[in-house]
Amino acid sequence: MTDTFTFTVSKTDGAARVGEIRMPRGVIRTPAFMPVGTAATVKAMYLDQVKGLGADVVLGNVYHLMLRPGAERVARMGGLHRFMNWPFPILTDSGGFQVMSLAQLRKIDETGVTFQSHIDGSTYVLTPERSIEIQGLLGSDIQMQLDECVRLPAPDEAVEKAMRLSLRWAERCRIAFGDQPGRALFGIVQGGTVERLRVESARALVGMDLKGYAIGGLAVGEPQAAMLATIEAVEPHLPADKPRYLMGVGTPDDIVEAVGRGIDMFDCVLPTRAGRHGTAYTRFGRLNLKNARHADDPEPLDAASTCAASNTYSKAYLHHLVRSNEILGMMLLTWNNLAYYQDLMAGLRKAIGEGTLADFVAATKEGWAKAARDGVADGAG
Amino acid sequence: MTDTFTFTVSKTDGAARVGEIRMPRGVIRTPAFMPVGTAATVKAMYLDQVKGLGADVVLGNVYHLMLRPGAERVARMGGLHRFMNWPFPILTDSGGFQVMSLAQLRKIDETGVTFQSHIDGSTYVLTPERSIEIQGLLGSDIQMQLDECVRLPAPDEAVEKAMRLSLRWAERCRIAFGDQPGRALFGIVQGGTVERLRVESARALVGMDLKGYAIGGLAVGEPQAAMLATIEAVEPHLPADKPRYLMGVGTPDDIVEAVGRGIDMFDCVLPTRAGRHGTAYTRFGRLNLKNARHADDPEPLDAASTCAASNTYSKAYLHHLVRSNEILGMMLLTWNNLAYYQDLMAGLRKAIGEGTLADFVAATKEGWAKAARDGVADGAG
Repeated sequence: MTDTFTFTVSKTDGAARVGEIRMPRGVIRTPAFMPVGTAATVKAMYLDQVKGLGADVVLGNVYHLMLRPGAERVARMGGLHRFMNWPFPILTDSGGFQVMSLAQLRKIDETGVTFQSHIDGSTYVLTPERSIEIQGLLGSDIQMQLDECVRLPAPDEAVEKAMRLSLRWAERCRIAFGDQPGRALFGIVQGGTVERLRVESARALVGMDLKGYAIGGLAVGEPQAAMLATIEAVEPHLPADKPRYLMGVGTPDDIVEAVGRGIDMFDCVLPTRAGRHGTAYTRFGRLNLKNARHADDPEPLDAASTCAASNTYSKAYLHHLVRSNEILGMMLLTWNNLAYYQDLMAGLRKAIGEGTLADFVAATKEGWAKAARDGVADGAG
Repeated sequence: MTDTFTFTVSKTDGAARVGEIRMPRGVIRTPAFMPVGTAATVKAMYLDQVKGLGADVVLGNVYHLMLRPGAERVARMGGLHRFMNWPFPILTDSGGFQVMSLAQLRKIDETGVTFQSHIDGSTYVLTPERSIEIQGLLGSDIQMQLDECVRLPAPDEAVEKAMRLSLRWAERCRIAFGDQPGRALFGIVQGGTVERLRVESARALVGMDLKGYAIGGLAVGEPQAAMLATIEAVEPHLPADKPRYLMGVGTPDDIVEAVGRGIDMFDCVLPTRAGRHGTAYTRFGRLNLKNARHADDPEPLDAASTCAASNTYSKAYLHHLVRSNEILGMMLLTWNNLAYYQDLMAGLRKAIGEGTLADFVAATKEGWAKAARDGVADGAG
């Protein structure tokens, strides 16, 4: 193990890269999908299952953890790794995005954001410095700058103002973070879907020489084409030797497309949230297990999968569990979905390493399309 | 493996017995606790965990399964064992008890019971013959006769009437069940807390020469003393060479007391239901993890347990999960509770085998009492 944070690209295929982030708590194989562990748990999963599927890193949410159980309490319990029993790398967001989407009575100024908890209404202040302090109390390995996320659509002026505030907050986070060997602070490129703002944001952040760069403010309902165009606009301005993280993305198809455009890291609640609501992601596309057509289907989700949730239980049984609101249904579908996501990432890494990404992507998409034609799936990947 | 159903008592200690039920799908070590798998799932558990804890048999509920997914559908899917992926013995109840407690607009006559589903209001008829047919469609290894359970308190006349109807239904079930090598039909002793009715019921059932005998209609809110008195009244009238099953019982203390009075089999939703509601059963009694006093406790539920749910996670973490309504909290507490119940049964079996039951019971109760004195527990066992 190393006491430093390093990122090495071992192979490229077009804009796509395969590589490794090495840090004291472990190696993150990229492109990586990071399961979301919002409140110190990847919902409905044991963390040894999550690791067993190939996840090298999970994500924690500052907003949730600062409200409950509280960052200082987690620190007293030995930090987030020990608290949730996950000794491998953890990435934490800054809290900014969820303050915007979940908290009540927000007030943003140069200093930071004041908000009321959605749990009990009590008032909190989150500044760039406090966000870094919280992420330090949690013991996070990869920490994110505080940023302002505007709801789209918004006037360009509002997007620009938020982007510039986020740059000033990035600099304050950089100073607050200081020099922490083996840990990393990532900046977040903002600017909505306005190319010149995205480019300005990227260039300014790169000037701060951070350990990695995220693209934020996407996956908020815009068309996939707009998301991909933004990645294409930003990517040339990010250094090739730093990891690139597309925040909050996405569907399997989003991930495949973004990897092809040079993205190294992803997080998304989709596989876990969809799993709790009866949806399975598979090589055959998306299945809605609530659908009555699965009620008598003796076949598993994917007989060729190595995941017990995918290869053992009939769709009829999963349908029954979902219809009965049984917790096991949520457990099995979440497990299947994270298995599929990790298998997809492993497939992408292998294909990039072998220089066959185009073939892999074509075969993956054909798998979804064929299942749709055959009526196996309820939706694409 | 055997193609017959056999029960062997290997050792007794007072009225308590240790033994084995052998049947084609496996051996049930008695005294046995049977986790409840109502709707073809032991809620919030993977069945390999349930087996790993030492459970030899799980229970399925005819009422729930006949409504959803339907007995004929389960049969088409290869039976309940294959449907839920549990190749070991399954005991099914007859549906009678839950028709009384859950269904709407019940009408009971000599034929059987007509009721409306609590799920969609549709009408079903459950006769003794249909109950046995359903249990056969499910592929149940140990089947229960249909009985009428009256809500207590009730006039003796009503209790007597229900007991006699249950005897006539037992005979109809016996005929419907016929001769099924390797499977068993159990009769159910009824009669409320009226000793002469219980004795009459037991004697009549024993006259039918069934493979095992249950005591029903208890654990419905009566004091523990009334339950134990009823066991003591019935036990001398049950043959020593047949298993005795106390239905729906109970707390760890109930189980300890009933084993000492000659009971071999138990089922209860308590460990699973309590686990989903924040309660842990341990060697140190009952803990309510919702309680704020656990918020900063770095200790696990039981460091000496071999169950990961009991020995790994801090009470502070479990408290956080329970307060946050996280599914993992339900998963871990259910797992801990079933581990404790199975450990208790293993301890009882070992003590009976060694002729040290009184010491084991005293030590178990002292563990609960000491924790209560020390303020460790929120309640007794």
